[in-house]
Amino acid sequence: MDINEFLSDNARNMKPSPIRALLNVVNQPGIISFAGGFPNPLSFPVEEIKQIMNEVLDEEGVKALQYGGTDGNAKLREEISKRYIKQGLDIDKDNIIITTASQQAIDLTARIFVNPGDTVVCGLPSYLGALQAFNSYRANIVGAEKDEELEAVVRAMCMSGKKPKFIYAIPDFQNPSGLTMTVEQRQYMVKIARKYDLLIVEDSPYREIRFEGEHQPLIATMAPERTIVLGTFSKTFVPGFRLGWVIAPKEIVYRYNLAKQSADLCSPVFDQYVAAKYLEKGYFEKNLEKTIEMYRGKRDVMLASLEKYMPEGVTWTKPDGGLFLFITLPEGYDATELFHMALEQNVAFVIGEAFFCDGTGKNTLRVNFSFMDDAGIEEGIKRLAAAVRTLFEKNGK
Amino acid sequence: MDINEFLSDNARNMKPSPIRALLNVVNQPGIISFAGGFPNPLSFPVEEIKQIMNEVLDEEGVKALQYGGTDGNAKLREEISKRYIKQGLDIDKDNIIITTASQQAIDLTARIFVNPGDTVVCGLPSYLGALQAFNSYRANIVGAEKDEELEAVVRAMCMSGKKPKFIYAIPDFQNPSGLTMTVEQRQYMVKIARKYDLLIVEDSPYREIRFEGEHQPLIATMAPERTIVLGTFSKTFVPGFRLGWVIAPKEIVYRYNLAKQSADLCSPVFDQYVAAKYLEKGYFEKNLEKTIEMYRGKRDVMLASLEKYMPEGVTWTKPDGGLFLFITLPEGYDATELFHMALEQNVAFVIGEAFFCDGTGKNTLRVNFSFMDDAGIEEGIKRLAAAVRTLFEKNGK
Repeated sequence: MDINEFLSDNARNMKPSPIRALLNVVNQPGIISFAGGFPNPLSFPVEEIKQIMNEVLDEEGVKALQYGGTDGNAKLREEISKRYIKQGLDIDKDNIIITTASQQAIDLTARIFVNPGDTVVCGLPSYLGALQAFNSYRANIVGAEKDEELEAVVRAMCMSGKKPKFIYAIPDFQNPSGLTMTVEQRQYMVKIARKYDLLIVEDSPYREIRFEGEHQPLIATMAPERTIVLGTFSKTFVPGFRLGWVIAPKEIVYRYNLAKQSADLCSPVFDQYVAAKYLEKGYFEKNLEKTIEMYRGKRDVMLASLEKYMPEGVTWTKPDGGLFLFITLPEGYDATELFHMALEQNVAFVIGEAFFCDGTGKNTLRVNFSFMDDAGIEEGIKRLAAAVRTLFEKNGK
Repeated sequence: MDINEFLSDNARNMKPSPIRALLNVVNQPGIISFAGGFPNPLSFPVEEIKQIMNEVLDEEGVKALQYGGTDGNAKLREEISKRYIKQGLDIDKDNIIITTASQQAIDLTARIFVNPGDTVVCGLPSYLGALQAFNSYRANIVGAEKDEELEAVVRAMCMSGKKPKFIYAIPDFQNPSGLTMTVEQRQYMVKIARKYDLLIVEDSPYREIRFEGEHQPLIATMAPERTIVLGTFSKTFVPGFRLGWVIAPKEIVYRYNLAKQSADLCSPVFDQYVAAKYLEKGYFEKNLEKTIEMYRGKRDVMLASLEKYMPEGVTWTKPDGGLFLFITLPEGYDATELFHMALEQNVAFVIGEAFFCDGTGKNTLRVNFSFMDDAGIEEGIKRLAAAVRTLFEKNGK
């Protein structure tokens, strides 16, 4: 039998993640990998988690092991809501549904709003995992390179009868660029969304990991009626519990609830009890501070190393937070070619092209600074710079 | 803004689960509920889990809290594969992908194989959560009432150009009927699947909870090339970890992997470490025995209570395992009417109609015997019998 004959059109459209496909290569011993998006394991509060797990089993017992509601643990949603209320969102716990991490939130978003061929607007570049999910629902993904282009792109789509369903944005320390939208850029996005009646999906996994500068307002505070916030514990607590959330108007949360009933009924129940208690005890804030401190240091090491080793003509972003920065080679140079040269130097990154829904960005690369230790960051950037020099020489710069 | 204007066609088709919708009503104090499908909390091995959790954190540390592979924990897949190899399946761990419990396995199955309008064949009745998931992908669900009807149904669909993609079956202690397919019925299903080139989805959440009699062969052992087995720990370990699995030929497992990358990247990592160790230590077998013992007793209490209290004309199945039995009222009586009378008696069940994709089954109801304590089972059946009598009187029997 030929399994391909049985596949749905959506399944035919599913592509393996270039990052996941690379993992086998880049995880070989001796390779310094800037490719993943893993948080640093030293940021995981193992002892606190152990203590809380024992407490949860002692206090809640079998309740923490039974099925849970599709909406998620009420105390956890309460704790999460408090954090957003402080940021100016007018919500309560029933504006929140817990998801099996942020990837499920992205996937359900596409499932709820996207028919095959429906337009979704995102940045150029934008988060690969979101592009992959939108693709798997056969969305028509259209990118805006600069924020100012947004209206032109939306208008063009509307005029061609393909009015977008939503704008997908990562306003804080974007993956992959590391950049943060200014308040003016956020206001402009809201203006366009209102003018053309679009939803905004504010994907916000890194927002709390800010090294310096002032927090910009959540887009959801500017357009609560049409903004869907996606959050996660994967970067600020632990990814292994698979816990994220969606914040939205209640009639939208209801749609996520219906979709999630079919998708997986409920998210890990025990893990939710642990997370709720972790927040409740104030451990989250304490550990987040440590994590921010750690990642700020790593970003500084990476920026200093880039400055020190990278040949002229290469540029990079200087993120105020998050896990990534984005490197641009001079026009005409190919990051895929560089990738192979870098592997020979035992260093890896993600080819930037994967983040561009229009196939551009061939001269870009994403590097992660959260995972590697400081010495590894310097050594890795040194190797990467050597690979860039080889690329330049080969291409006669 | 009107959110309905933004919904995908699939989202418009999503209906709330009648069971989940009932939970608020049936969980009120004083109500004896046979409505859920919850395992008995006394079957949860709290102390063993506590011990293992501490061991996992001590031995694996941060690894158990980091992201995991989409395919799932290798040791866990290894342990699961052993259990199926013993049953005659010729597989290794790479024929298995871990899912966020069985509901995700069902959902991904529909996502991978079902285009809107594609035919899926299931039993009459069949598991509500599967019907819901298939519906959410706008499948054309066609039911076969008796196993012998299967070929007629499949042939009719093929002749009308709607060849089914797969047959969905729960061969062991079916939800909701409690019935088990004989080996001859399994052979016949395989014959039809081969003749018409269909996949078989063997949903197998209850198989290991057998009270008496011999295990019938897994359908997958008879047609390994075209059978997809769905398994779960939700009924034999704990549902709160949200761990299930799919077993299939490797090219099919690859498709689940792609779909799961988009759906939620990976299943709860820490919970997988705990489950792997729990199996490895042999705790699973020991606890399963206890659970079987407990549920056998509960089934016996329920059967004896039905015998003792139920008025003539009412019939029910006598399951050899699992969590449910199915009650049939005399022709013409309405279980929805009974439901309201039962609530007045402070007892609840699931209206059987919800399990029939063709809208029949109006005189049927599903009752769960795993969750309630023995005294509650007898008292609940007594109340249910009183409600049936009220129904009979009102309708002049």
